[in-house]
Amino acid sequence: MAKGALPGFRDFYPQEFAERDYLLKHWRDVARRFAFVEYDGPPLEPLDLYTKKSGDEIVGQLYNFTDKGGREISLRPEMTPTFARMVAARANALRKPVRWFSVPQLFRYERQQKGRLREHFQLNVDIVGEVDVAADAELLSVAIEIVRVLGLTQNDVRARISDRRLLRALLATLGVSEEQSGGVFAVIDKIERQPLDISREKLSALGLADGVVERIIGLTGRVSLDGLRAEYGADAAVNECLGELGRYFDCLDALGVGAWAELDLKIVRGLAYYTGIVFELFDAHGEFRAICGGGRYDTLLKSLGGVDLPALGFGMGDVVLGELLRHRGLMPATLAGPDYWVAYSEPAQRAEAMRVSQALRRAGASVEYALRPQQLGRQLKAASAAGAPEAVILREDGTLILKSLASGEERTVRLSEGRLV
Amino acid sequence: MAKGALPGFRDFYPQEFAERDYLLKHWRDVARRFAFVEYDGPPLEPLDLYTKKSGDEIVGQLYNFTDKGGREISLRPEMTPTFARMVAARANALRKPVRWFSVPQLFRYERQQKGRLREHFQLNVDIVGEVDVAADAELLSVAIEIVRVLGLTQNDVRARISDRRLLRALLATLGVSEEQSGGVFAVIDKIERQPLDISREKLSALGLADGVVERIIGLTGRVSLDGLRAEYGADAAVNECLGELGRYFDCLDALGVGAWAELDLKIVRGLAYYTGIVFELFDAHGEFRAICGGGRYDTLLKSLGGVDLPALGFGMGDVVLGELLRHRGLMPATLAGPDYWVAYSEPAQRAEAMRVSQALRRAGASVEYALRPQQLGRQLKAASAAGAPEAVILREDGTLILKSLASGEERTVRLSEGRLV
Repeated sequence: MAKGALPGFRDFYPQEFAERDYLLKHWRDVARRFAFVEYDGPPLEPLDLYTKKSGDEIVGQLYNFTDKGGREISLRPEMTPTFARMVAARANALRKPVRWFSVPQLFRYERQQKGRLREHFQLNVDIVGEVDVAADAELLSVAIEIVRVLGLTQNDVRARISDRRLLRALLATLGVSEEQSGGVFAVIDKIERQPLDISREKLSALGLADGVVERIIGLTGRVSLDGLRAEYGADAAVNECLGELGRYFDCLDALGVGAWAELDLKIVRGLAYYTGIVFELFDAHGEFRAICGGGRYDTLLKSLGGVDLPALGFGMGDVVLGELLRHRGLMPATLAGPDYWVAYSEPAQRAEAMRVSQALRRAGASVEYALRPQQLGRQLKAASAAGAPEAVILREDGTLILKSLASGEERTVRLSEGRLV
Repeated sequence: MAKGALPGFRDFYPQEFAERDYLLKHWRDVARRFAFVEYDGPPLEPLDLYTKKSGDEIVGQLYNFTDKGGREISLRPEMTPTFARMVAARANALRKPVRWFSVPQLFRYERQQKGRLREHFQLNVDIVGEVDVAADAELLSVAIEIVRVLGLTQNDVRARISDRRLLRALLATLGVSEEQSGGVFAVIDKIERQPLDISREKLSALGLADGVVERIIGLTGRVSLDGLRAEYGADAAVNECLGELGRYFDCLDALGVGAWAELDLKIVRGLAYYTGIVFELFDAHGEFRAICGGGRYDTLLKSLGGVDLPALGFGMGDVVLGELLRHRGLMPATLAGPDYWVAYSEPAQRAEAMRVSQALRRAGASVEYALRPQQLGRQLKAASAAGAPEAVILREDGTLILKSLASGEERTVRLSEGRLV
């Protein structure tokens, strides 16, 4: 028999499960506080749901196969196509804006690399039916609030924001044609991961003059709304985009997360379907991959689901976020034990120990006891090993003792409606 | 594009998700109160993990395929093989008894039938390392406590209990050979689903005399420990099994669930790997399929994982339980809306509404507001449509009004540390 999980898949033993649960609980809690409601779809979908959006080249990265009914199917590599399918199917009946979230496990057949997994859990948060930039700000504030409640600060995590329309308008003022834009976006997308001279060469190879290349390089450095307005604001399209972005940053301030955010035109997001404001969350020291990424995809629902509704969303995976929290010492280390261990002095008292345990459980406590009669000393050792903070000891005379397993302190108690008093 | 989910797969829109979440929350809550800890494994496993236990015939029911690295793999059809693999890999390091639970989504390529799904969620609860019948009673009491907290009573749900060793010993006293036993078990397993005369014929066909056939039929009717002891107790093996079962029922009584349980030798459980006490939970009117089933499988860990440890467990799916709760009116019907809707009188107050919303959210409340400036009346309609019980209204003069959307009642409030006072 196979001794372990498949390569790239994780076994979640209780300790690892507790860490995963810690992240997912915070994801759900914050999403709910922002009035998003949870949905889920099938982990298996028809293959064409993915090829339609991403083309056939994505198939190389999928867990796809032919089922016993001859259907071409795939494990889900991302949630957005399922989301688009579900929203489109009930587009008229759904209250707008749609505010939904999901926590799917996703699957990609990645090439084997150290630390590269073939599955991960990903929070997906999406809004459908709202063009106002307040929706973009609301969305980013969910992502920031999550890292904040997990103990990270604006000095640990930065939200880097760009706007595809703005970048396109800026490039247009530099004489970059619509045809050249795609190539320029691709170079900017990789600009942090290769030497600057390589980027310069690639931009030149697109037929751009040296002066234009340098101004593009300049745009990918430190920029501000005011600086861009001074340099490019005479252009009406640029000016309109800057106005929108200004209103967006005002909303971030009102939502109390403005200090986490900065304009950064290097953020392109590889996926071609984004249409407006895009963002990624990174650790401030640049040691980890992106924690989260998303943006506005106003045309995707139409192309995937046949319904013309503006939309925006982000995805946040459990792997990088978990690594960052562990690295910062922010991942709770201990698996909680039961609240009480009920121990008994005489083997004949096991039935009474069961009754006490059940009363405590029905009142909400987590309780364990020795299933097989054992010496009291062994039971208390088992209680400590299980991580119980306190033992309830049934004495021979029937009295109950509550004993702290840390201090050894004891006091006589009695059971009243499932509580020890 | 495919318009819907694959046949046999469910889309969980928010309402359906809320129902699934309701079940899963109660599963987890009860399992934790019984001091079980959660684990999970991969939804994809090597194919031989399943063929090893169940033989090649199971392959016809699996979602199995060859991955891009040439591995034979399958979506998990059940959790026990993964559980056995994980326990076996760390058998020495794990505290005994192991008390683990999991809530996997499982996949079977079932033939298409009305209401037959190809995926479901299943609570799995297992104990490893304890031979005492107290463990068997503890396990069943988890299953019963779950249906109890969901609002079902001992008049709605019955736990039907058998013991494979007892049944084997009883058959031995009737002269049924070891070789004939398998066939008799198979007939008893189906005895409720076919006319009694067919069962008689099948038993006769095994070479059993008419008198023996009738006594076997009698064993599958109403029986009690006392009745069996009077009739078969002279046999030492039978007597020992009855003693064990008696201690088991005593434990159920001590755990407060004895009244839900009855001896029923018709319960065989199809799977061949059970070795002792087995049980199923059924609705008392017999309208639904089994809610839950399990038992002791003391030899399975050895055959699957190479580790010789006694073990027992059960599985409870979400589909039948959900049907039963809906049928009894016990499935909460409404999807909760946000706690508050923050509305504003003037468009310019949207930023202030964002600040108020964020303060309430950070204090734990779920809050929505109109992302796009709207007339106050429209905002309050949206608040009602969203299911918010209360609106917080920002008046032009900056005062806050808390308005009940059901009664229309209003009072002036102010914000203090995220609370409305």
